[in-house]
Amino acid sequence: MSRLVMKFGGTSVADIERIRNVARHVKRETDAGHEVAVVVSAMSGKTNELVGWCREAGALHDAREYDAVVASGEQVTAGLLAIVLQDMGVTARSWQGWQLPILTSNAHAAARIEDINGTELIKRFKERKEVAVIAGFQGIHKETGRITTLGRGGSDTSAVAVAAAIQADRCDIYTDVDGVYTTDPRVVPKAKRLDKVAFEEMLELASLGAKVLQVRSVELGMVHKVRIFVRSSFDKPEDIDPKSNHPPGTLICDEEDIVEQQVVTGIAFSKDEAQISIRRVQDKPGIAASIFGPLAAANVNVDMIVQNVSGDGATTDLTFTVPASDYQRSMDVIGKAKAEIGYEKVDGAQDVAKVSVIGIGMRSHAGVAAEAFRALASRNINIRAITTSEIKFSVLIDAEYTELAVRTLHALYGLDK
Amino acid sequence: MSRLVMKFGGTSVADIERIRNVARHVKRETDAGHEVAVVVSAMSGKTNELVGWCREAGALHDAREYDAVVASGEQVTAGLLAIVLQDMGVTARSWQGWQLPILTSNAHAAARIEDINGTELIKRFKERKEVAVIAGFQGIHKETGRITTLGRGGSDTSAVAVAAAIQADRCDIYTDVDGVYTTDPRVVPKAKRLDKVAFEEMLELASLGAKVLQVRSVELGMVHKVRIFVRSSFDKPEDIDPKSNHPPGTLICDEEDIVEQQVVTGIAFSKDEAQISIRRVQDKPGIAASIFGPLAAANVNVDMIVQNVSGDGATTDLTFTVPASDYQRSMDVIGKAKAEIGYEKVDGAQDVAKVSVIGIGMRSHAGVAAEAFRALASRNINIRAITTSEIKFSVLIDAEYTELAVRTLHALYGLDK
Repeated sequence: MSRLVMKFGGTSVADIERIRNVARHVKRETDAGHEVAVVVSAMSGKTNELVGWCREAGALHDAREYDAVVASGEQVTAGLLAIVLQDMGVTARSWQGWQLPILTSNAHAAARIEDINGTELIKRFKERKEVAVIAGFQGIHKETGRITTLGRGGSDTSAVAVAAAIQADRCDIYTDVDGVYTTDPRVVPKAKRLDKVAFEEMLELASLGAKVLQVRSVELGMVHKVRIFVRSSFDKPEDIDPKSNHPPGTLICDEEDIVEQQVVTGIAFSKDEAQISIRRVQDKPGIAASIFGPLAAANVNVDMIVQNVSGDGATTDLTFTVPASDYQRSMDVIGKAKAEIGYEKVDGAQDVAKVSVIGIGMRSHAGVAAEAFRALASRNINIRAITTSEIKFSVLIDAEYTELAVRTLHALYGLDK
Repeated sequence: MSRLVMKFGGTSVADIERIRNVARHVKRETDAGHEVAVVVSAMSGKTNELVGWCREAGALHDAREYDAVVASGEQVTAGLLAIVLQDMGVTARSWQGWQLPILTSNAHAAARIEDINGTELIKRFKERKEVAVIAGFQGIHKETGRITTLGRGGSDTSAVAVAAAIQADRCDIYTDVDGVYTTDPRVVPKAKRLDKVAFEEMLELASLGAKVLQVRSVELGMVHKVRIFVRSSFDKPEDIDPKSNHPPGTLICDEEDIVEQQVVTGIAFSKDEAQISIRRVQDKPGIAASIFGPLAAANVNVDMIVQNVSGDGATTDLTFTVPASDYQRSMDVIGKAKAEIGYEKVDGAQDVAKVSVIGIGMRSHAGVAAEAFRALASRNINIRAITTSEIKFSVLIDAEYTELAVRTLHALYGLDK
């Protein structure tokens, strides 16, 4: 017997027929004797509808009221799933964030979970064999007693937090893909589903666009050692992957649980990038702050930052990337701050892409990046900028070469096999 | 300065534009210096959508889950109205049933309000000039901590209960009609809006089909002496009725507050009736129970009951009415219970209507009913059965004469003027 959290996203609960499908997944686990807590999102489209109304109601709306409105979506799904489960003969009850309670910070619309007491749920597992159906994405602030939401994708985080609270053996995230891939299969048809990914790798993959799991949920899993299994809600229950003897999916787990460590785990890329280079900036303390301070104040999310060691000892070039949609705004901000920053000129490029190679194995393998630079050069792909970290490196290239670069690197590191 | 409760139904909050109109009504009252609590229903259509999903999820669904799902509709409207009010510069916050809390019985989907503590709301009126926007139709059961709903139309009851809790001077029910009429204006174009109706009269008018207010809310208003003012949410704020020096509407109040008492206040009617007559029932104790017990067990709502004094001292005829939709089921129930009841035969009629004349003044005026019988006879309208109470009498007639009967009685009692 295991204790499981099962999380289902909006497309998996889009209508009653799909909710019935979700209930079949749950019943399969309870029939197998497992103790189950289910975390659900709002029916797909519902959150957008609710958010749309809030915006229509007031441009600068009170986030506390926004949360009260938007949290209703998950409340509906939780109740409906409990009804369907009962209809199938499974004992179940719904829990809203304030009922459990899921205590959060006071940062409405972007709250962080602070505490969940799992005692009552565990007691009900034991005494009543009752499935807990929990509304994801929401909580309550202890002092104000008002409903909070965790921000978009927050149900993943709810699920992992519940799993930590009830000491679950695993947190199954049912989604519309069947796991995490070595890269986007639309670009590289030979992309393979990863059986296991380390938390650290998943953090890099997710923030770079693998978009399977909310970053915060992976962080939470890493801290609380919650094994997260990403799998498809459209699988037939009887589907078993002959290789792993599990249903198809990807386990996100501790580095130590991955026996056969690959050097490179995956290739991520992002096309919606723009590059801005500030030329001949004075190379003196505080200069980075004078550039990135105004950008942060303008809510621009700066990604790669490359600063070379000054050649002449007095000035240097500084390159960074921003989301393509923020390009013009960023240029304006830098232009306005010219006197303060002190630079010769600014140039930029909009048709650029970032390609990243991720793998925990890089830590102990030298020359991984060098191989990539060589392979890209052999394809005549010019590298505009490079950043590296312990378990990943990224290159900025012209966008038109994105697919070629991804395919080249995917093959280079043996991910095609 | 007054303290007001303002209640808006589903059609008044059907979209953001209409919610903005509601907010204008609220702002008018706060601008005039009044302390305001607003009670809102779900956007029209939403409750039906939610109920439909519950039914689709499971035929015999858990009423606790049903309540959790269905209560979300009012939660959304309350949050949206708070946002719109803030956007107009009115300090406001939303309250869900469990937040206030509105404590109810445990009868899910048909709960009764047991207690509302108005202290916090009054404190906020005084300290922050904050408008309370309260989700109608819902509450929480103290012991289980689960959401309850009051049943259809429950928002009226929420409003009157809140008014009692905060000792409001008046409870304004904004609806899609501008008050309570002497009869249905579609039948009698000369029907007049009543300026004032006594609680007792309104109870009879409402249960007979005036359908303006939920019966339970009128009962509650009568017990707690809450003056209820029914008015249109589509009025322009500047509309003032020259006769009453108030906006157009009907005040439902204590009998003593009505100075010019009419003998007859209104004519109600109901066409969805069926008549069942049981012939030559044995006239002995317990016979009524043997008939109406099985009907109650079958959930048939029996309305008029007429039993004549036995002529032969041994048997009698017994006539009663049921909703037309329950006719066949009722006949079956009576048929099955024939041996137990002991009667000669049963006959019935489906095309019948009940017309009722209501007025507190009848108590002190003799011959009011007799005038009606004469007037109906002069029109050749046959009376199948008669029941009377202190402040109303009803006649059962062939349905095809309904409009003629209503018009005749409306004129007879001077309501056309």
